[in-house]
Amino acid sequence: MTKTQEPTITSVTDLPTSDAKWLTLQQIAYVDQTGKPRTWEVAARKTRADSSGGVDAVAMGNIILHPSRPPATVLVIQYRPPLDAYTVEWPAGLVDEGESVEKAAVREFREEIGWECEVVSLSPVQAADPGMSSATMQMAMVEVRLGERDDPLALPEQRLEDGEHIQRVVVPLAELYQKLSEYSARERTIVAAKLFHFAAGMEFTRTMGKQYGLSG
Amino acid sequence: MTKTQEPTITSVTDLPTSDAKWLTLQQIAYVDQTGKPRTWEVAARKTRADSSGGVDAVAMGNIILHPSRPPATVLVIQYRPPLDAYTVEWPAGLVDEGESVEKAAVREFREEIGWECEVVSLSPVQAADPGMSSATMQMAMVEVRLGERDDPLALPEQRLEDGEHIQRVVVPLAELYQKLSEYSARERTIVAAKLFHFAAGMEFTRTMGKQYGLSG
Repeated sequence: MTKTQEPTITSVTDLPTSDAKWLTLQQIAYVDQTGKPRTWEVAARKTRADSSGGVDAVAMGNIILHPSRPPATVLVIQYRPPLDAYTVEWPAGLVDEGESVEKAAVREFREEIGWECEVVSLSPVQAADPGMSSATMQMAMVEVRLGERDDPLALPEQRLEDGEHIQRVVVPLAELYQKLSEYSARERTIVAAKLFHFAAGMEFTRTMGKQYGLSG
Repeated sequence: MTKTQEPTITSVTDLPTSDAKWLTLQQIAYVDQTGKPRTWEVAARKTRADSSGGVDAVAMGNIILHPSRPPATVLVIQYRPPLDAYTVEWPAGLVDEGESVEKAAVREFREEIGWECEVVSLSPVQAADPGMSSATMQMAMVEVRLGERDDPLALPEQRLEDGEHIQRVVVPLAELYQKLSEYSARERTIVAAKLFHFAAGMEFTRTMGKQYGLSG
């Protein structure tokens, strides 16, 4: 990356489905619960691996543990053309052909963040945006265990693919909701819904847990 | 709804963007941070209201409060052709032209659930699936306050549009994560990522909050 400038959209054109490489638009004809024929429009990824068990992508909810610092999480901020904005997300990526979801999580985390992580749990398959698309994902909860001498703010080198420009930010877990709210107020910046919902769920239990009987 | 049968897909065909009513596929040409021209494929909704401030949809994170029962939330289960499965979601809907997001939340909640609700907070705008689509949403946190004689399991009549078949389930908040995990294990059933992430964030703070210093 030799120079840095604000990304700028130069054109937006309708894309014939036959020319699209990554996505497609489909019409589904179906018979509903009452026996009536209906149709539904859907956006789909063309890249789902046959070996994936029906999963397009994995996102890494991650915990950075350091012996003497508060537990933190690392977020990625990148320009996303579909929004013409910088998005704040957990690192994520598509699952490659022949690759397990856990392996994809470790690989993508290494590429985007630079650290080796350990998968501690894997969520069920979730529907990314079920009214509009067939895209699915799983969340891998991963941990990075740093040593006393590791500086969680001195991030290691990334292994990004050509065209990827990804900024990393390390946020203490206890401040996650507050930081996402601050990012949302910035110009040309938008938080991804999955990450925001996780943080909102944390904040909900933190603030309402006692009153609603949700504490551990 | 005179009879009930399993919905069945009869065909899936490529949909020319010119024939699509709800969605479209676009190619974005842009200049990246280094000055290099690039392209990105995006799925977009055609229905965003000019008056919406850039928001397609609203989802209703909801709390059902009853004087002598534990706080609960109501979920909707419906057949979603894009997944060919029943999805478990919070009630949600598109924002109409000229309608505020809060008004859309109250209207959609009334239509899908049948209860009047009060909006207690509104999230920032969030990107639904930012690598793939331009779709955006806000989460309205809403409350329904029932009286002592109201039975939260005796749900009122829905006002559904033609073709909508939506089952409602009331789940105690303290059991939300567990119930979603159970739904995920059912055949032909998938939980929406936003709802699952909120519940996972709740569960994370419940189980790890003390250890990680996240408690209120």
